[in-house]
Amino acid sequence: LAALALVCAVPAMALTTAEILDAAPASDWAEIAPDRLMVMDLAPDSEGKPRQVLIQLMEPPLSVGHVANIQTLARAHWWDGTSVNRVQDNYVVQWGDATEKKPLPPGLATIPESAYTLPVAALASAIHPAWSWRDTYAVKVGFVRGFPVASDGARVWPTHCYGLVGVGRSLSPDTGSGAELYVTIGHARPLDRNIAVVGRVVKGIEYLSALPRGTGTLGFYEDPAQRVAITRVRLASDLPAGERPRFKVIATESKSFAQIVALRANRKDDFFFAPAGAVDVCNTLPTVRQIEP
Amino acid sequence: LAALALVCAVPAMALTTAEILDAAPASDWAEIAPDRLMVMDLAPDSEGKPRQVLIQLMEPPLSVGHVANIQTLARAHWWDGTSVNRVQDNYVVQWGDATEKKPLPPGLATIPESAYTLPVAALASAIHPAWSWRDTYAVKVGFVRGFPVASDGARVWPTHCYGLVGVGRSLSPDTGSGAELYVTIGHARPLDRNIAVVGRVVKGIEYLSALPRGTGTLGFYEDPAQRVAITRVRLASDLPAGERPRFKVIATESKSFAQIVALRANRKDDFFFAPAGAVDVCNTLPTVRQIEP
Repeated sequence: LAALALVCAVPAMALTTAEILDAAPASDWAEIAPDRLMVMDLAPDSEGKPRQVLIQLMEPPLSVGHVANIQTLARAHWWDGTSVNRVQDNYVVQWGDATEKKPLPPGLATIPESAYTLPVAALASAIHPAWSWRDTYAVKVGFVRGFPVASDGARVWPTHCYGLVGVGRSLSPDTGSGAELYVTIGHARPLDRNIAVVGRVVKGIEYLSALPRGTGTLGFYEDPAQRVAITRVRLASDLPAGERPRFKVIATESKSFAQIVALRANRKDDFFFAPAGAVDVCNTLPTVRQIEP
Repeated sequence: LAALALVCAVPAMALTTAEILDAAPASDWAEIAPDRLMVMDLAPDSEGKPRQVLIQLMEPPLSVGHVANIQTLARAHWWDGTSVNRVQDNYVVQWGDATEKKPLPPGLATIPESAYTLPVAALASAIHPAWSWRDTYAVKVGFVRGFPVASDGARVWPTHCYGLVGVGRSLSPDTGSGAELYVTIGHARPLDRNIAVVGRVVKGIEYLSALPRGTGTLGFYEDPAQRVAITRVRLASDLPAGERPRFKVIATESKSFAQIVALRANRKDDFFFAPAGAVDVCNTLPTVRQIEP
């Protein structure tokens, strides 16, 4: 009877994730707006191969002020000539101006820490209603416009999942301009609500996550020669039309996404015989596909 | 009042983790037995630097059969000349015999999947009693003899936390001999109960987690030249006395460990202003310190 229950939870004829995605109507996909797609070129690797990282910036009402600052910084070409300076195993990879002396462009706003979270009322209808699994760090979790979020019932905030990008800051919580960025490559959920989350790496995370770990405090590179040069950062909208990469994300409010989440939570196939019956909000981020020219 | 409550949760005079560890009595530490400490040497890196990975194998009653097989394989020097063959981003790094033709040593047992979990009664007294935070994948989580575990109330199993080592297998659940091993470098909790967990990398995980990601199916290296050679694997007990590394682990049943867990769950300091009030079982693995000769 127990075996039968498992089989019934995920019928043998269930679609695979790939099949669900392939069958999803165009309306279940959302293209990333070109002014919210950041293209970061690192210096080529030791074999001369290019390394490009693509970052999706959040849409309103999430992290509005910080995202606007980041767009300003990208349009000012501020990151050109900066570097990846910190790689802390099972935590974050961080980039920006290692000298901490490069002047910032005009027009950056100071964002208070109150902007790290939003009132539930602003987002309630957008949080995926079917999501009811336990989460260690929050009362409720779900997705808003493609991004994982958590809530304590009163406020909602984006979560530090693998691949999510946040804004480095000094001790005072309002000091993160957006110039210093990091991507989560491990356990970083305790940073939730303590720092602004602004985006997600949608392609090329391996060029950051597989970098040598820094041996200094917090994983900073001790030898400046270890830093990885950032040659260029642009918004896709500022690239020539023929050079703009395009990506689409499965809409987290769509039926297709709900099917994928249910499938991942009850994974049972030729290999998996003991389905978990739940899935971590960080372990079912929406699929991203590149749109070929 | 809210601010006061936070301050009271972690008094300003609270010890830091380092202070708790430094003050812990010797009885709060447990040395890893030399026959449960596996020393894996990879070929030197491109700059000629040595790469050594240290793996702690579980103690009874956890994963007894698989650990015995792994000790047999190490004593037979079976891994010498094998390689790291698979690096899947945000998932696992796997090593073993890429040819899948190397004969196994005699004396390996076939372990059924029933051994992936244990009855709660066998372990109940050892699960940290103060642990009561929510977990997405289980009803209860905690630690047994230095290792993170989860439970559904009836059975207990070791969890796929970052750095934990498991036994690769074919589709049939009893096919994992222990010869094919992997370490978790990302989200792998859905593997819980589907595969045997046998140990934990206690030093040198960066030599595995920072390897280039494989571009083949499941992150396997497509070009055999990309594989990373394993030159030698030994149990510390089989090394000459002067070459044996020694490590101690803070005992997960100790008062010191309980203090550290509480501190991590309520982190509040010059940087963190919004304590989570909980911590993932995988984000507070017991501290390991090398014992200097």
